[in-house]
Amino acid sequence: MLDHQSILNALQPVQDPELKKSLVTLNMIRNVSIKDSTVEFTLVLTTPACPLKELIIQDCEKALKELPEVQEVKINVTSETPVQKALPTQQSIPNVKNIIAVSSGKGGVGKSTVAVNTAVALAQMGAKVGLLDADIYGPNAPTMLGVEDYQVTVEKRPEGDILEPVLSNGIKMVSMGFLINPGQPVIWRGPMLTGIIRQFLHQVNWGSLDYLIVDMPPGTGDVQLTLAQSVPMAGVVIVTTPQNVSLIDAYRGIKMFEQLKTNILGIVENMSYFIPPDLPDHSYDIFGSGGGMKASQELQIPLLGLIPLEISLRQGGDNGVPILISHPQSASAKALKLIAQKIAGKVSMMALA
Amino acid sequence: MLDHQSILNALQPVQDPELKKSLVTLNMIRNVSIKDSTVEFTLVLTTPACPLKELIIQDCEKALKELPEVQEVKINVTSETPVQKALPTQQSIPNVKNIIAVSSGKGGVGKSTVAVNTAVALAQMGAKVGLLDADIYGPNAPTMLGVEDYQVTVEKRPEGDILEPVLSNGIKMVSMGFLINPGQPVIWRGPMLTGIIRQFLHQVNWGSLDYLIVDMPPGTGDVQLTLAQSVPMAGVVIVTTPQNVSLIDAYRGIKMFEQLKTNILGIVENMSYFIPPDLPDHSYDIFGSGGGMKASQELQIPLLGLIPLEISLRQGGDNGVPILISHPQSASAKALKLIAQKIAGKVSMMALA
Ligand SMILES: Nc1ncnc2c1ncn2[C@@H]1O[C@H](COP(=O)(O)OP(=O)(O)OP(=O)(O)O)[C@@H](O)[C@H]1O
Ligand SMILES: Nc1ncnc2c1ncn2[C@@H]1O[C@H](COP(=O)(O)OP(=O)(O)OP(=O)(O)O)[C@@H](O)[C@H]1O
Ligand SMILES: [Mg+2]
Ligand SMILES: [Mg+2]
Repeated sequence: MLDHQSILNALQPVQDPELKKSLVTLNMIRNVSIKDSTVEFTLVLTTPACPLKELIIQDCEKALKELPEVQEVKINVTSETPVQKALPTQQSIPNVKNIIAVSSGKGGVGKSTVAVNTAVALAQMGAKVGLLDADIYGPNAPTMLGVEDYQVTVEKRPEGDILEPVLSNGIKMVSMGFLINPGQPVIWRGPMLTGIIRQFLHQVNWGSLDYLIVDMPPGTGDVQLTLAQSVPMAGVVIVTTPQNVSLIDAYRGIKMFEQLKTNILGIVENMSYFIPPDLPDHSYDIFGSGGGMKASQELQIPLLGLIPLEISLRQGGDNGVPILISHPQSASAKALKLIAQKIAGKVSMMALA
Repeated sequence: MLDHQSILNALQPVQDPELKKSLVTLNMIRNVSIKDSTVEFTLVLTTPACPLKELIIQDCEKALKELPEVQEVKINVTSETPVQKALPTQQSIPNVKNIIAVSSGKGGVGKSTVAVNTAVALAQMGAKVGLLDADIYGPNAPTMLGVEDYQVTVEKRPEGDILEPVLSNGIKMVSMGFLINPGQPVIWRGPMLTGIIRQFLHQVNWGSLDYLIVDMPPGTGDVQLTLAQSVPMAGVVIVTTPQNVSLIDAYRGIKMFEQLKTNILGIVENMSYFIPPDLPDHSYDIFGSGGGMKASQELQIPLLGLIPLEISLRQGGDNGVPILISHPQSASAKALKLIAQKIAGKVSMMALA
């Protein structure tokens, strides 16, 4: 006879393809109910951005239909993003489950573009997402999300001032751009940077977030150190363009995070090639080719994806309408969406490892 | 009868087209000698990279040939780069006449590319040139000049350690890249940056230089402040790409230097358009267009030139053979050479103003 235990037994062999463990062991099967020959349960994924959702559902259905008593299977899919563990020296942000930095050694490789679009993609897939623009001197995220004229409001609380993040495309965000007039430079020495980054982490009304994406400035200095040392990070995504000078700086960035004991989630190669919109059979390696793959192999770090040079991606950044919204079918939008899913998958792996 | 004074009188109306003053007043006419109907003199330009050299020579010849006694004119052209004045709080580098920073707010816009090629162009035209790579976290200049495996030597002197610069393509250079192993990150907080920049300025055996080009890191922080405050600068060249996010950061960079009372020599627009090498009648504005001109007009700052996207320019940077050497006839090499000449002209104007 069909009972709760026989369902779990049948599902025991089904694995999460990424975490490589049984769904049952991972406590991803819940609320099992049986009515006649219909089995219904909730599949609790580790991220709303699970790239293998369909595959997992199919595997469950297949496993259950091997039980002769089962005629119908109803699966309700939801997700519970796991929480990263903190080191004793790090102070978690309450209810912020995973902090993900988007970094590189080199400037202008597309960190902000990847950070903003990863945030948009994860939000589109149903995750609760925050975006912390840690580029104090060159805050580009507000422009890229069309909120450059916004200001953050400050709430006086007994425990100190709390910033209310700006809401854009379902994403809660803070940026130096919301605290200064447009075009005004922030002429600060390093220790000031440390202060504002701490504030952006701990004195913002982030609420509960599955992912807090951090758009990093170039370099391996104050901001990188402050972030890695003061909060538990799920990991860092390294963006590089294919050419030598960018790879060399990317290696430096990776080594820094390794020294700071921060997980490297993977490498994104951006500006990989240019296909003229009117000549789809031409392709130009303006910034070279193969650099991301080379780095991935040499350093044994996953390559999360390649993003081509696309005029509409740049326009999306300039106009404040991310390409995932303006041109979701473009090659770069598809690449960015897949990258976001892979990031979410790696983050779950880290938390459950 | 022809005499020294009549020659000077005849040359008095001839102006330096850039400085808009008489060559005679500027003391650019020297060693006048008269033999029968032949007049010979030395024309002392204010830079070996004078873009208007030929024009000035023609103007002199024309003015002198109006004297009926003159049959032949012999002009020996040389140059004496003028020296920038220092503020009381700034410490000049002995024998270093002009310090020129190449900066921007944004990363990856081509600062290092412009700095390296400006240095090469000025050296090719006969100037004594140094290159200070002030990008401590991401030192790319050694790669771009093919000397990434070099090390600087240190000389113990009674007054302290003195670094011996690396020589490449006739350019004396120092870089953090010469002090660390390749790929090693420099995980430093701001105050350390200030120290090394001071050392790169004042504890290097620069010898005598017409121009010391400084390749700046992105941002408006420690390095920018230290440079502007500790040495007299001839001025700063702002590099931007055409798109919004880059322009916004360029404005920030310009405002910072204005606040620090540093001259802005002009704006360079880089990555202006892409012409596929096999399709010379196609052109793509991958990163937008017109941004440099817009900034130039809005801020009343000269536009020094536009550099197209060219694969060989990127390859030159990656392979360590600057495009001015590998492809001197390419569009970007020509643009870079003109930009170097304009920079040199502006610097002379500043010094003589
Ligand atoms: N794949 C792409 N195709 C076209 N344009 C792109 C692409 N990726 C990024 N860009 C554009 O290139 C510029 C630089 O990208 P972005 O600002 O994201 O880089 P960054 O690494 O954050 O720079 P910084 O170091 O200044 O923070 C932006 O104008 C962006 O819109
Ligand atoms: N006009 C161009 N055409 C093709 N490639 C270019 C052009 N200008 C620069 N590049 C390439 O783009 C990359 C970025 O340029 P560069 O390193 O000079 O920028 P940067 O502003 O110094 O960056 P950073 O902020 O990291 O110091 C380099 O690989 C360079 O070779
Ligand atoms: Mg950025
Ligand atoms: Mg650079």
